[in-house]
Amino acid sequence: MNFSSYIPTKVIAGRGCVRECAEALKPLGTRALIVTGQSSKRNGALADISAALTQNAQRFAVFDRVTPNPTLSCVREGLAMLKETGADFVIGLGGGSPMDAAKAIAILAVEPRTDEEIFAGGYGNAALPMAHIPTTAGTGSEVTPYAILTNDFARTKTSISSPALFPKIAFLDGAYCDNLPPHITKNTAMDAFSHAAESMLKNSSSPASELVARESLRILYPLLKSLEAPAKETRDALLWASCLAGMAIAHTGTTFVHGMGYFLTYDFGVDHGRANGLLLGETLRIFAENGVPAVQAICAACGASIEEIAKTLSVLCGEREKILRKTCEEYAARAMKTKNIRACKYQPTEADILRIFTKSLCG
Amino acid sequence: MNFSSYIPTKVIAGRGCVRECAEALKPLGTRALIVTGQSSKRNGALADISAALTQNAQRFAVFDRVTPNPTLSCVREGLAMLKETGADFVIGLGGGSPMDAAKAIAILAVEPRTDEEIFAGGYGNAALPMAHIPTTAGTGSEVTPYAILTNDFARTKTSISSPALFPKIAFLDGAYCDNLPPHITKNTAMDAFSHAAESMLKNSSSPASELVARESLRILYPLLKSLEAPAKETRDALLWASCLAGMAIAHTGTTFVHGMGYFLTYDFGVDHGRANGLLLGETLRIFAENGVPAVQAICAACGASIEEIAKTLSVLCGEREKILRKTCEEYAARAMKTKNIRACKYQPTEADILRIFTKSLCG
Repeated sequence: MNFSSYIPTKVIAGRGCVRECAEALKPLGTRALIVTGQSSKRNGALADISAALTQNAQRFAVFDRVTPNPTLSCVREGLAMLKETGADFVIGLGGGSPMDAAKAIAILAVEPRTDEEIFAGGYGNAALPMAHIPTTAGTGSEVTPYAILTNDFARTKTSISSPALFPKIAFLDGAYCDNLPPHITKNTAMDAFSHAAESMLKNSSSPASELVARESLRILYPLLKSLEAPAKETRDALLWASCLAGMAIAHTGTTFVHGMGYFLTYDFGVDHGRANGLLLGETLRIFAENGVPAVQAICAACGASIEEIAKTLSVLCGEREKILRKTCEEYAARAMKTKNIRACKYQPTEADILRIFTKSLCG
Repeated sequence: MNFSSYIPTKVIAGRGCVRECAEALKPLGTRALIVTGQSSKRNGALADISAALTQNAQRFAVFDRVTPNPTLSCVREGLAMLKETGADFVIGLGGGSPMDAAKAIAILAVEPRTDEEIFAGGYGNAALPMAHIPTTAGTGSEVTPYAILTNDFARTKTSISSPALFPKIAFLDGAYCDNLPPHITKNTAMDAFSHAAESMLKNSSSPASELVARESLRILYPLLKSLEAPAKETRDALLWASCLAGMAIAHTGTTFVHGMGYFLTYDFGVDHGRANGLLLGETLRIFAENGVPAVQAICAACGASIEEIAKTLSVLCGEREKILRKTCEEYAARAMKTKNIRACKYQPTEADILRIFTKSLCG
């Protein structure tokens, strides 16, 4: 079997690690652009990275206007600030949105593109160096070569990809997650869980990706049942599991579950992790019905049956959004044309996709 | 808990991968020095890498004079050839010895040192880029930041260490191992097994290092019993397990088992992996007697008790070398002064070290 394993990011984990390991930031450059949203001001992360950079005599500016599901105009705004300030490296600080925006800024700074070209692929191997600091435990973006942006041309979210998008450093400090409200904790945990599970369902799944995916599922699944007010140790474990799930999709990419979820996020503002959680249960059933052994491996790693997993996700999702069957039909047709519909261990038909949408969202 | 995870090497695995993924070598440079021994001419590895470089229009020279346990004079000779040929990147091709020599050449080319300074530590973060191709399944050097060289000043082998010693690429093709004689298969498998087990015994052992260490043990242990004429799938699994064990020690380093074994290699020419195999059983007993829980984790990963593991290693070692008690006493005193005596989950006394030597080698 042929496979590869490549995670060049240095992961530094532990409470207090940003200040303690400030030294690690020194080789990145002389002047940083910190790309973030508003919550990093409240959870202590912005204060920590500011102190670390100051300690290193590295100057920095803060672009704090990243909103969920970052748009190209948000990325352009950050890019303008990067140029104004002369920053030569980028800090991605926050949940998936600031990290994804930071990645887009870091690569577009080196490889300028028009809005029309941004999703055209074919990126080279250069970007400004980055350090990423997740403040939710879900995206795993801190160890992936992807940035996912709102794509108004296609009315969905679309990823851009390059090995240059691997951050040089990822700092994992669970303290930044301590005060997350339950709905964010749950939605992001479902995102991480979905990454690990989806990775196992890809053709490109390998001994390298499965090692991290299984470990992520093993850690995550039991924690999914107690996310109302997690203890510190649980926060740390969620963050590490989310990072492992990120490593898994760094190797394999995600499946059509993500592609389908992006429609829900774009059109109805459904949180990204929640969208995955809504769709994953029925997806696992379809893979199982079609005899894909990876489903058993997922169950073994979780120590649970498909129905138990589906129920756990369902409880986390709570009351489901309802969408019209007609919308589901339109989505199913569009989903068949997305790039992540392919390369799974079972190739879904349009009827399968429609079934997942309707069973998940038509009550 | 604070820890870090960092394996920047891109691992490309699979039969035929060197020729198939020749493209990956392109960014390394324009002219290679291939550092190897004699066996790569017989196992197909030299032909494959030569074809891959030729396909890329990358020129190369072959330094094929690396012998087991490379000396500084061997490294100097390779370094002279590198300079003569103007090579700007290095291929390490063979077992641990050619890979370690290649690493020393790659870093000394950038950071010249006298023989006296080579083991003084404090290396910077620069070396010529490298691709490594292991042709035995033991050392894991293809994914570590270490090079182990014969140190005549200290009458042992000593490691040099720098993040710059991580190869850019590691190609794992089990075919190069297909015709290894049983004693090399066994000795190198014991080396890999010892890396994974020793890594679990270090204070620096972490969720990241334990993940790869446990997986390595899980794969390796059942295979240790059928190493006379392994099937191709077994060869591939051994090579991947050896790589995982390399990742484990890349995070944690080795223990005093390695430090003790180097004496046996230096003075009696005991093969490196075999030296570890000879000493590991008694070492595990001492850790267990002193209540180190990691021993149970090692046993769980292997699916075997300490005594079963010790017996398996003993069978692989066959008839043991005998050394004088007086020599053991001298070694125990010297071992207490080596750097890897420290930072284990149990700090051995000189009496412990003496016990390991005498129980293992005084019959």
